Amino acid sequence: MKLALDAMGGDHAPKEIVLGAMKAVQAFDDLHICLVGDEAKIKEHLTTHERISILHTEEVILGTDEPVKAVRRKKDSSMVLAAKLVADGEADGCISAGNTGALMATGLFVVGRIEGIERPALAPTLPTIGGEGFLLLDVGANVDAKPEHLLQNAIMGSIYAENVRGVKNPRVGLLNIGTEEKKGNELSKLAFDLLKEAPVNFIGNVEARDLLDGVADVVVTDGFTGNMVLKTIEGTALSVFKMLKTTLYSSLKTKLAAAVLKPDLMQLKAKMDYSEYGGAGLFGLKAPVIKAHGSSDANSVYNAIRQTRDMVEKKVAPTIKDAILKYTEAREE
Amino acid sequence: MKLALDAMGGDHAPKEIVLGAMKAVQAFDDLHICLVGDEAKIKEHLTTHERISILHTEEVILGTDEPVKAVRRKKDSSMVLAAKLVADGEADGCISAGNTGALMATGLFVVGRIEGIERPALAPTLPTIGGEGFLLLDVGANVDAKPEHLLQNAIMGSIYAENVRGVKNPRVGLLNIGTEEKKGNELSKLAFDLLKEAPVNFIGNVEARDLLDGVADVVVTDGFTGNMVLKTIEGTALSVFKMLKTTLYSSLKTKLAAAVLKPDLMQLKAKMDYSEYGGAGLFGLKAPVIKAHGSSDANSVYNAIRQTRDMVEKKVAPTIKDAILKYTEAREE
Repeated sequence: MKLALDAMGGDHAPKEIVLGAMKAVQAFDDLHICLVGDEAKIKEHLTTHERISILHTEEVILGTDEPVKAVRRKKDSSMVLAAKLVADGEADGCISAGNTGALMATGLFVVGRIEGIERPALAPTLPTIGGEGFLLLDVGANVDAKPEHLLQNAIMGSIYAENVRGVKNPRVGLLNIGTEEKKGNELSKLAFDLLKEAPVNFIGNVEARDLLDGVADVVVTDGFTGNMVLKTIEGTALSVFKMLKTTLYSSLKTKLAAAVLKPDLMQLKAKMDYSEYGGAGLFGLKAPVIKAHGSSDANSVYNAIRQTRDMVEKKVAPTIKDAILKYTEAREE
Repeated sequence: MKLALDAMGGDHAPKEIVLGAMKAVQAFDDLHICLVGDEAKIKEHLTTHERISILHTEEVILGTDEPVKAVRRKKDSSMVLAAKLVADGEADGCISAGNTGALMATGLFVVGRIEGIERPALAPTLPTIGGEGFLLLDVGANVDAKPEHLLQNAIMGSIYAENVRGVKNPRVGLLNIGTEEKKGNELSKLAFDLLKEAPVNFIGNVEARDLLDGVADVVVTDGFTGNMVLKTIEGTALSVFKMLKTTLYSSLKTKLAAAVLKPDLMQLKAKMDYSEYGGAGLFGLKAPVIKAHGSSDANSVYNAIRQTRDMVEKKVAPTIKDAILKYTEAREE
């Protein structure tokens, strides 16, 4: 198996990307990685060349670049070239920790959609109290979604949860403002009707306040709402930890208690760190394209590589293709 | 000033409602309260009658009732009768901790919209790390919003923040998936253009992850998105506190440290409790209608009464009416 890595994307590129790649080839005997980016800079951190190759390029898409324009103009950027390796059949999937919008555009324009998929979805796995996590899709690839897109999100998410995350008969919930059937806006009401008939284990509407309790394994919504929920979870958790820190350092007495608790609190914070579950998958493309978190360290990069490898091995993209085809044929009959 | 209180709405009614009302008339010399509900049950908790009257009724709208049907059929319910006192000019505003959907319908059908307001908005004040709080509107009154509704939300929220919360020139932000001008879905792009020209201090797009940092004083969005963000904040904060509790009670060592920290941690949790800021206002109605949190205790009820009193005193409804009229005339010229 060969995966392409955008070595120049993310806050800690190329160092942490290279370290993550080396960790991954050590862990998986069958894995070849192609690092795409500035050869000299990559080599500063690369201490082994076994099953790691470099595709040199100096062009980089920046976090501040306008996504679609950047992808069209920076044809030799590390991100676009990594995707091209996939499109040309030279790699089975690709990963980048760079500009999210640009990666979505790259996935769409360079790797291409699965036939029958109307809009790809960006899907991270988010933490739950119990540690099992849930897949949220979409979080921003498709901000003006139609009911059919939510249905396809449900099918794609269900396949991923079952095959890659090993969840038997994953519970699929529709994110809504209440649990009753007739609740919500136009989009969610129409999506509910489609989901009732869909070939997934649809458990009905789920509320945002129950997500971290693990109310569903796969949660479908439009890209605008999903992005809001994702960022609200991040922002709230961060704010509570910030306030907790202030509280713990407010007096000598609390500082002493804090010192005792520190290892446990660090563990608690790590539990909310969703890069442990891998990166966000772009579902609906012909091959796996994974967005690792912008602040990824070597371990997060390693997790994203492992996830991409699992998606290739478990044939997620071909399975989605078959399921969508089957569903479309069944509806036309 | 006279306010009507639905004595039967909420998880702890009528006891906590009655206690909150007594606290309020003690605090404010000019305040008369009419408690609407079951007289015998109310009297069990009422120890003073000074400036408190009772309007007896046995009908109650339940939390499980379908909102619009309940309001149409239960014409003698405590919630509907409280609103009728307002519509008949016998009270200046009303408060309920009962069924949120039913209160929105009651406000619309019984109290009525301000002329020129297309859709009322439900607006709670949410906590920030710094303690100043921010107003979020709408959180569910209008789930299929148009750009004009978001513009009206901005005007209404700005007037409330300035007059009731005492924020000079309140910063109004549009909740969006990124801060750049061209970001978002169709609705947010169109709303952005309207807000640029609106008579408010529009600071542009704000992201959900920055809300608790106090990025804006007034945050406008559609009712579907706002509801999601509200419930995600609640759910995430609750989940983190739950996990924290598990951590603190995991061993004898942590239990001892936890005992030392307990008062400080309780204070931290209280900081996230937004009932301190009062209830959620239904803006755009002819008179203040306030939704107190369903789990309100006497103190939360008291805060909601104080807030309603402020809204009456600061003439929020008439000011909104004038501002909308002025804006509409200016646009027509």
